[in-house]
Amino acid sequence: MKSSVKSIAVLTGGGDCPGLNAVIRAVTKTAISKYNLEVWGVEDGYLGLIENRMRRLSYNDASNILTVGGTILGSCNVANPFDYADPSQDDGPNTDVSDDCIKALKSRGVDALICIGGDGTMASAADFAKKGLTVMGVPKTIDNDIWGTDITFGFNTAVDTATKAIDKLHTTASSHHRVMIVEVMGRYAGWIALYSGAASGSDIILIPEIPYKLENICDSVLARSSRGRRFSIIVVAEGAKPDGGDMVIAKTLEDSPDPIRLGGIANVLSEQLSKATGLECRAVNLGHVQRGGTPTPFDRSLATCFGHLAVELLMQGTKNHLIVQREGRFKSAPLSEIAGKIKTIPTDHTLINAAKAVGTSFGI
Amino acid sequence: MKSSVKSIAVLTGGGDCPGLNAVIRAVTKTAISKYNLEVWGVEDGYLGLIENRMRRLSYNDASNILTVGGTILGSCNVANPFDYADPSQDDGPNTDVSDDCIKALKSRGVDALICIGGDGTMASAADFAKKGLTVMGVPKTIDNDIWGTDITFGFNTAVDTATKAIDKLHTTASSHHRVMIVEVMGRYAGWIALYSGAASGSDIILIPEIPYKLENICDSVLARSSRGRRFSIIVVAEGAKPDGGDMVIAKTLEDSPDPIRLGGIANVLSEQLSKATGLECRAVNLGHVQRGGTPTPFDRSLATCFGHLAVELLMQGTKNHLIVQREGRFKSAPLSEIAGKIKTIPTDHTLINAAKAVGTSFGI
Amino acid sequence: MKSSVKSIAVLTGGGDCPGLNAVIRAVTKTAISKYNLEVWGVEDGYLGLIENRMRRLSYNDASNILTVGGTILGSCNVANPFDYADPSQDDGPNTDVSDDCIKALKSRGVDALICIGGDGTMASAADFAKKGLTVMGVPKTIDNDIWGTDITFGFNTAVDTATKAIDKLHTTASSHHRVMIVEVMGRYAGWIALYSGAASGSDIILIPEIPYKLENICDSVLARSSRGRRFSIIVVAEGAKPDGGDMVIAKTLEDSPDPIRLGGIANVLSEQLSKATGLECRAVNLGHVQRGGTPTPFDRSLATCFGHLAVELLMQGTKNHLIVQREGRFKSAPLSEIAGKIKTIPTDHTLINAAKAVGTSFGI
Amino acid sequence: MKSSVKSIAVLTGGGDCPGLNAVIRAVTKTAISKYNLEVWGVEDGYLGLIENRMRRLSYNDASNILTVGGTILGSCNVANPFDYADPSQDDGPNTDVSDDCIKALKSRGVDALICIGGDGTMASAADFAKKGLTVMGVPKTIDNDIWGTDITFGFNTAVDTATKAIDKLHTTASSHHRVMIVEVMGRYAGWIALYSGAASGSDIILIPEIPYKLENICDSVLARSSRGRRFSIIVVAEGAKPDGGDMVIAKTLEDSPDPIRLGGIANVLSEQLSKATGLECRAVNLGHVQRGGTPTPFDRSLATCFGHLAVELLMQGTKNHLIVQREGRFKSAPLSEIAGKIKTIPTDHTLINAAKAVGTSFGI
Repeated sequence: MKSSVKSIAVLTGGGDCPGLNAVIRAVTKTAISKYNLEVWGVEDGYLGLIENRMRRLSYNDASNILTVGGTILGSCNVANPFDYADPSQDDGPNTDVSDDCIKALKSRGVDALICIGGDGTMASAADFAKKGLTVMGVPKTIDNDIWGTDITFGFNTAVDTATKAIDKLHTTASSHHRVMIVEVMGRYAGWIALYSGAASGSDIILIPEIPYKLENICDSVLARSSRGRRFSIIVVAEGAKPDGGDMVIAKTLEDSPDPIRLGGIANVLSEQLSKATGLECRAVNLGHVQRGGTPTPFDRSLATCFGHLAVELLMQGTKNHLIVQREGRFKSAPLSEIAGKIKTIPTDHTLINAAKAVGTSFGI
Repeated sequence: MKSSVKSIAVLTGGGDCPGLNAVIRAVTKTAISKYNLEVWGVEDGYLGLIENRMRRLSYNDASNILTVGGTILGSCNVANPFDYADPSQDDGPNTDVSDDCIKALKSRGVDALICIGGDGTMASAADFAKKGLTVMGVPKTIDNDIWGTDITFGFNTAVDTATKAIDKLHTTASSHHRVMIVEVMGRYAGWIALYSGAASGSDIILIPEIPYKLENICDSVLARSSRGRRFSIIVVAEGAKPDGGDMVIAKTLEDSPDPIRLGGIANVLSEQLSKATGLECRAVNLGHVQRGGTPTPFDRSLATCFGHLAVELLMQGTKNHLIVQREGRFKSAPLSEIAGKIKTIPTDHTLINAAKAVGTSFGI
Repeated sequence: MKSSVKSIAVLTGGGDCPGLNAVIRAVTKTAISKYNLEVWGVEDGYLGLIENRMRRLSYNDASNILTVGGTILGSCNVANPFDYADPSQDDGPNTDVSDDCIKALKSRGVDALICIGGDGTMASAADFAKKGLTVMGVPKTIDNDIWGTDITFGFNTAVDTATKAIDKLHTTASSHHRVMIVEVMGRYAGWIALYSGAASGSDIILIPEIPYKLENICDSVLARSSRGRRFSIIVVAEGAKPDGGDMVIAKTLEDSPDPIRLGGIANVLSEQLSKATGLECRAVNLGHVQRGGTPTPFDRSLATCFGHLAVELLMQGTKNHLIVQREGRFKSAPLSEIAGKIKTIPTDHTLINAAKAVGTSFGI
Repeated sequence: MKSSVKSIAVLTGGGDCPGLNAVIRAVTKTAISKYNLEVWGVEDGYLGLIENRMRRLSYNDASNILTVGGTILGSCNVANPFDYADPSQDDGPNTDVSDDCIKALKSRGVDALICIGGDGTMASAADFAKKGLTVMGVPKTIDNDIWGTDITFGFNTAVDTATKAIDKLHTTASSHHRVMIVEVMGRYAGWIALYSGAASGSDIILIPEIPYKLENICDSVLARSSRGRRFSIIVVAEGAKPDGGDMVIAKTLEDSPDPIRLGGIANVLSEQLSKATGLECRAVNLGHVQRGGTPTPFDRSLATCFGHLAVELLMQGTKNHLIVQREGRFKSAPLSEIAGKIKTIPTDHTLINAAKAVGTSFGI
């Protein structure tokens, strides 16, 4: 069944992620040169849809953006068309402005909306689909935790950035006989911590999937010290937590409304470890650097395939699906299947086993 | 069935490849710390086996090598134990010295040999297996053309290096309105050319799997020129060839016993294109730079998994297999299945389709 | 006058700095191959001198370390031989153990000590010189604030690391219309902030030499916003402070004994700016990453020259000097001249003027 | 004396060089925001002047180009307004079209021309000055061989690129016990070879300033081999030549009108060394990669200062000068002083001495 789509819109939602422009480029160029479609770029994610801000994208608009980080369309973390807090209505309740969004698209003759984003963006996309809008989702996450796809763009770049930063910290740690505690992104899943920790040969990796015991971390660090290795590198996902409770996180939350910006778990661990072992500890939070920059070649190719397939499948009649990669192949899956799930690391993951075998501790 | 292996040897054969040390590290650390095995490192690939040069590897020998390019064991491109040209016997025929190799291993009590290498290395490994030696293969190739595995370490780093070099050439090409022809590795398969070409947004990609027509390349370049894009980037695999014959390659072969070192296909194309279009053309051969350097984080993790599994499966009783990754999972496959096959790019590969859709020509 | 030096010792003191190994290599190789000297490596800076821990360095010990970050000798931030807090004497007063240090050197026949370090290290070196020990100093600082030399190794690498991190943050800032506040090292001088800020095209640069007014920062950010540039990048040296007082820093100091680890000034500014402008602000503290990693080619060559000249001048009879670069030339200057001074940025520095002319604000 | 300049034009001439856009940005922003000048961008160097192609540059045109390699204005290697080969007049003699160029500038009210380029560009700039046009030169060269300035932008980036490529080749050389001969740019001066060779710890560095003896190179390589170092890295400037004649180069010139594109000196040396020593040799020509890419932070700041000062000095009444950096300070010097001179490396350069002291051979 061939599609009757003549005009599409594309938006990028949620946090920054290397490769967004590569998807926009592939969507735009495929749509224009292969299918002669009209392409609209929605500005600042769903916020631009709500505020009716979109612009025509030409073939040339999609040139020279492949290697550029960020998104030429802008993004927005918070705007949800189905539960919108209108800033002009200070004290009013949130409202559903999704009909206005659909009207804005229809008034321009847009037949289908391609949403590039993470969980939140896909949840709204699925809601739009229920209202009859044709949507297609492209998964985006540096955290690699979107359920339904084995991998998506941004993750490889984030791991690359994190690993190279840890490589740098390694020399300082070894020169100064220090314990370095490096906090990387990953609130619910520890993919960045696992992959950057393994790739940098870190000594201890702490991830949300494997609650740690502080005494085990201390033991590992002291055992290294007693073997003459007077430094250790600990990579910790921001969402890692101790076995038996969220005490550490809770303790931080009391001090600050935003523990992440204060260095969060790494700072807490640094203090605890320093006290428990007497060793010199230093916390480093890699922060937003992980989200930015030129995508790796791996992510550029992946993003190009995702963007291309979003248009391709749409023109072949698929709708309300998410483009995914499973078992090494590109496919698509119903948006409704994905909603509300998180892809965490199975505790028997090959890389966890391999890391353990080469001497890495997971704090258990 | 548990293995009775008590002592293993490991060797690296064939051309240099980023990640070899990461495999050696994972093999050595897994063998020593998890299974308490004795580990022998064979020097310079099969040549060290032939010449009975190997050394004990300790846990510490495998430390601090994860990020280092090359191989601490040394390698050798040419020595084949089953067809050996003894340099001390100048005019004599090649001989089979495989029994000496097995004797050298047995004299040290080695129960199994882990061979890290490409086609040639695996062919000899399979031959050793036929003679009763327990072997385990770890596939190694920057070219990504080993049959039986979807991916192996080294390829990601080579694509990373090539893409970043092409990124640099892009600015010169556009500033000077030039056609830049960049030759990358890939004698039999165009994986590096495809992935670095797509990731760098190159205008034309030439691979062995898709014989090109010179007039189509000229047309693409001139069409860009007439659209106001007065530069083009062409990425060409060293093994790319024109439709209907090997004329170009043959012509080069007449001039030199080693066309690769002369810049090979890129130089030939540069002259042909310059003559046919009147445009300023420049050839660049990225050469050995693609083989060296620190492995990417992706390759470090992959190599760690491969090395770990080689020991792991050996200890679980598997033998004479190659460690592979298929459909996103690590497995193993009989060495005998792999021999003599090359994994080329299917012409309907997703990335080829995506590249075409965003305007890339493949010279057809 | 030729020197009678037959044996030298070398130590690295203070914080980690890319290029330390390049100096050690140049010192060791020059000493051994050109002058046939004995070379001793003191472990962990002055602490190794105090604890009489040093090892002979061979020519091969100095091989393959040129590109490695950190120091193969180890370092120590705190040990001062002239005012030593002996950890085995918990409550005792600090003592002068410099005679023991000199004895340790003499017992090995060491004629001269090469000290690679910053202010603190040089102060002790000058004190040793007063006691008759022949010393030679090599300036080391990522902060570029050592008085008496225009430049030294480590600074170029730190600027490189910081700039590339800010480049990455740029895409996120522009995609999300955010104000990004990036804290870089520089307690007393803003060299890293100035050079990384100018090189990354940052909008505002805050350095200790130019106390800022918060309202001017707000004005700059809002002015950009009103011109349609809805993001800004602010680079702030950790030692930057508001005009008319240290209030901001003091406020942070109340919360924590170590404001730097909490993100220090960047966090404070982020909160203040967010409150004052209503814009979304994010703080990032680049932290220890700036100290580590492979030195840039620039720093490797510079460090090689410094290390070479330390031995060279020593053998020509110079002593108790610091190797420096002034006005494009390598020279040396008496250690006594340097002591207790800091090289801050002149406020009419060419790069400050150039940055202002291209639109950068310094918060005044 | 203040300048009466109201409108300027800027052009980039000669080969590509990282930092050109940083100069254009600094010129444009300084001119517009500090002096309220009109700015014209001449396209494709002097060719655009000859063909009367220039466009107004706004403040925004100069935004977001600081980190981009190449030149947004385009460049041209060959057009000389004083000796122009008009392509539409095939067989006619070259003509002087400089009056037309001046007319094109005057017709737009341009008071002064800022020429960013190398020797050739500056020679024409000096010729224009003689005809009464107000010009200001900004030196540009990756080769660092412009007389009159200690350094200029582009060189640092080229050394960075070359060194990192040699770092990569190092692992292959050592794994395979090979001699790697790496050709870098530098026809008349060996700055890139010296700095990248020293920074990568190469074993032999060959530069035009120090004619080499082939037997000395062989001796060095074999001496290393006999000490158990079975590999060597040779960095050779494209303009290096043997002592006592240009034989090697001549031999290559017979085969090709453009020996550089064939790998030039590195290929010749590889064959000669292989024959003379029996060792496995490989030639790599880094080629155009050295000219491209994002400028290093060092070059971005330097280029910003140069561009800023070009406008600044012009507005202060200086004319027909070249902006230079000497002895660590920015200055300017009459264009007439510079013409026709090349800055080669003094053979007692500190880095040559330091490299020798750490064991590097210069083939003598």
